[in-house]
Amino acid sequence: MRAQDLIRTKRDGRELSESEIRAFIAGVTDGSVPDYQASALLMAVFFKGLSEGELSVWADAMTNSGRVLDLARVPGAKIDKHSTGGVGDKVSLCLAPLVAACGVPVPMISGRGLGHTGGTLDKLEAIPGFSTALSVDRFIEVVSEAGLSLIGQTDDLAPADRKLYALRDVTSTVESIPLIASSIMSKKLAEGIDGLVLDVKVGSGAFMKELGRARELARTLLGIGQRAGKRVTAFITDMNQPLGREIGNANETREAIDVLKGEGPDDLVDITLQLGAEMLLLGGVCQEQDEALQRMRAARKDGSGLAALAKCVEMQGGDPAAVHDTSKLPQAKWSRPVLTDRDAVLTSVDTERVGIAAMVLGAGRETVDDVIDHSVGVTMNVRLGDRVKRGDTLATLWYNDEERSQRSEQMLRGALEWSDQEVPPPPLVYEVLR
Amino acid sequence: MRAQDLIRTKRDGRELSESEIRAFIAGVTDGSVPDYQASALLMAVFFKGLSEGELSVWADAMTNSGRVLDLARVPGAKIDKHSTGGVGDKVSLCLAPLVAACGVPVPMISGRGLGHTGGTLDKLEAIPGFSTALSVDRFIEVVSEAGLSLIGQTDDLAPADRKLYALRDVTSTVESIPLIASSIMSKKLAEGIDGLVLDVKVGSGAFMKELGRARELARTLLGIGQRAGKRVTAFITDMNQPLGREIGNANETREAIDVLKGEGPDDLVDITLQLGAEMLLLGGVCQEQDEALQRMRAARKDGSGLAALAKCVEMQGGDPAAVHDTSKLPQAKWSRPVLTDRDAVLTSVDTERVGIAAMVLGAGRETVDDVIDHSVGVTMNVRLGDRVKRGDTLATLWYNDEERSQRSEQMLRGALEWSDQEVPPPPLVYEVLR
Repeated sequence: MRAQDLIRTKRDGRELSESEIRAFIAGVTDGSVPDYQASALLMAVFFKGLSEGELSVWADAMTNSGRVLDLARVPGAKIDKHSTGGVGDKVSLCLAPLVAACGVPVPMISGRGLGHTGGTLDKLEAIPGFSTALSVDRFIEVVSEAGLSLIGQTDDLAPADRKLYALRDVTSTVESIPLIASSIMSKKLAEGIDGLVLDVKVGSGAFMKELGRARELARTLLGIGQRAGKRVTAFITDMNQPLGREIGNANETREAIDVLKGEGPDDLVDITLQLGAEMLLLGGVCQEQDEALQRMRAARKDGSGLAALAKCVEMQGGDPAAVHDTSKLPQAKWSRPVLTDRDAVLTSVDTERVGIAAMVLGAGRETVDDVIDHSVGVTMNVRLGDRVKRGDTLATLWYNDEERSQRSEQMLRGALEWSDQEVPPPPLVYEVLR
Repeated sequence: MRAQDLIRTKRDGRELSESEIRAFIAGVTDGSVPDYQASALLMAVFFKGLSEGELSVWADAMTNSGRVLDLARVPGAKIDKHSTGGVGDKVSLCLAPLVAACGVPVPMISGRGLGHTGGTLDKLEAIPGFSTALSVDRFIEVVSEAGLSLIGQTDDLAPADRKLYALRDVTSTVESIPLIASSIMSKKLAEGIDGLVLDVKVGSGAFMKELGRARELARTLLGIGQRAGKRVTAFITDMNQPLGREIGNANETREAIDVLKGEGPDDLVDITLQLGAEMLLLGGVCQEQDEALQRMRAARKDGSGLAALAKCVEMQGGDPAAVHDTSKLPQAKWSRPVLTDRDAVLTSVDTERVGIAAMVLGAGRETVDDVIDHSVGVTMNVRLGDRVKRGDTLATLWYNDEERSQRSEQMLRGALEWSDQEVPPPPLVYEVLR
């Protein structure tokens, strides 16, 4: 294989053969394909795409560029969930324990937040002592005993993806559906799962701003997973406003734990139950959706979900008392309400800006090297379609730095649009693709 | 400037600003823009092109990435010629001395052959002792005294082009008209010329196989040159068969010298006179084309062209006796006629394959590191539209290696198509763009 020949083939819109794709991914992994050729091919893929057949091979080659976990030791079908990311999306933290409590093991390898999006690992690390850097063997043990484990990417899982992602980031080839889809799926398939529920976010706080693109991504992800022989369902869900009320780390973890305690905001509860019921169906512990939803509700009511999280936290070095008493989670020094000066209806949220407002407080990262402050964040009190009166509290900022809180408040105010007219709230789930 | 932002701008089909282009070319030159970002931008340019404005800045930034020669010491307008390359194209060797003899100085910086195309430098080096590696100061001296000098690319001229060209070669981004055009023009503009005649080849032995693409390249080259304030004319000429009869190095040099002596094949003489006349017009020594053609013919007849070449050869360390007596040029050990076994008309030549047949003998390079044998080559005895009889000599191979001569003969035979029907020969010049 000469990399320039592959680049030419793709550049001219022709199909790469299976052996060409495998040689390219192997060459990226072992460094024998230099970065300048890899980036040229990535740009050609950006323009010319990958066919279904190419994409399956590409994702499979990335999956097999490193270790693929063998979860045979854990009985039953292992089902994971992946969200394409957004603002306030703490679903994994309440979903995984509930699903585990219902008898479906959840081996979940997650990422960190960057820019306006939060990351599951960062939220979990708000729990004192909790480690997301387990060995693969320990990860399998925790899944076996607690029914779930949540850890970070390890060096030996899908190393080709790590290399290609770093290159895409600096060569403006991130926004390509086949490249996004193969990146996501290669990491998930390396977990050794049997099935996957995908939550493709669409809207002002999502990577995909338009339903058409989100649908294309969902179908592409679904296709890769199904051709790899996995049970996969893709939800397309709303990200035109933050999910739930909390944005940050400790406060999002607290809100997720609230859901496990039978509390929490309606939208977060609703999506957790829907995604979880689908995982129970894919996992084969239920045959009907109604039954699956019932099981999820029961695990929320009887405290078995909370117990599963506490067990997982304990096995991963965290303080399980913080799960039962969330006042043990880090708390910011100060808080301040953001008040409105008008009577109006909230008609639009620039959710990405809301995410950045939380980042400005220290809850997120501008660059990968930034250090997160787990205690700070934003609590949103208004949702799309809500009518407010002058003097109402729109949001509360939890902060440790006065200057940052002022910048954050300004960002937050600028992210909200108001009108006199009533507007209907957006649906929570747009489509479910099976 | 963040290179990924430039890549994104171009990827999305938007225009780069002057400062962005200059920063990118400067970054390529000094190495601060890594190759993987440069190659991603090159691929984006491949797909999205460059506007006229972008292209002028891009070419100018490449020109000024290194030294730009100051030829003010040489009186009169300095005019160069550039061919996009082909098979048997030895025009520079007879053209430059004739134009110089007519009073227009020709500072010519040329390249080497690769693949099926020959290079002017390789042909010149068939002359014993001739050096194409002069210092810039010596180059200017030779132009001043001999009226012409022919040398190779120096390290300090358009270094950005050298870097980008090497990268394009291994990332399949060569075949982009704006990138080709800016590469050519940056090197020519760095010569410090006042005007340029472009010979854009089209046909089976050219880089551009179709007239439409050749015209697009010609217009792009013309535009860059004119916007840089130079006098430029572009010819689009035929490369559907080798130019002249000789393909190789010593034999092409001999054929070019034949032209200077009033001999040589019609097509080579004709194109030399037409291109040369245009150079005299651009150089301002003639006002009318007829007068310019007359001057060129006279320089051929009175031996002043031959004398100019001899002077140049002498000043560049070569043996001027070889100009007067071409039997002093290297000669291959053996020769063999290639005979035809049919009565037919030559209807088509795969000229690229003919070039490769000469390369196989040792006249050209398969890779840049190959060493050339100046003595070997092919003499073609047939031209498009010629009728041959069984037993006629199609070509003569001049060779030093029997096995190579057999492979070469096979290639050559495979490159020729025959028919019973008469076909008209192609025109020599398709278009002249001023």
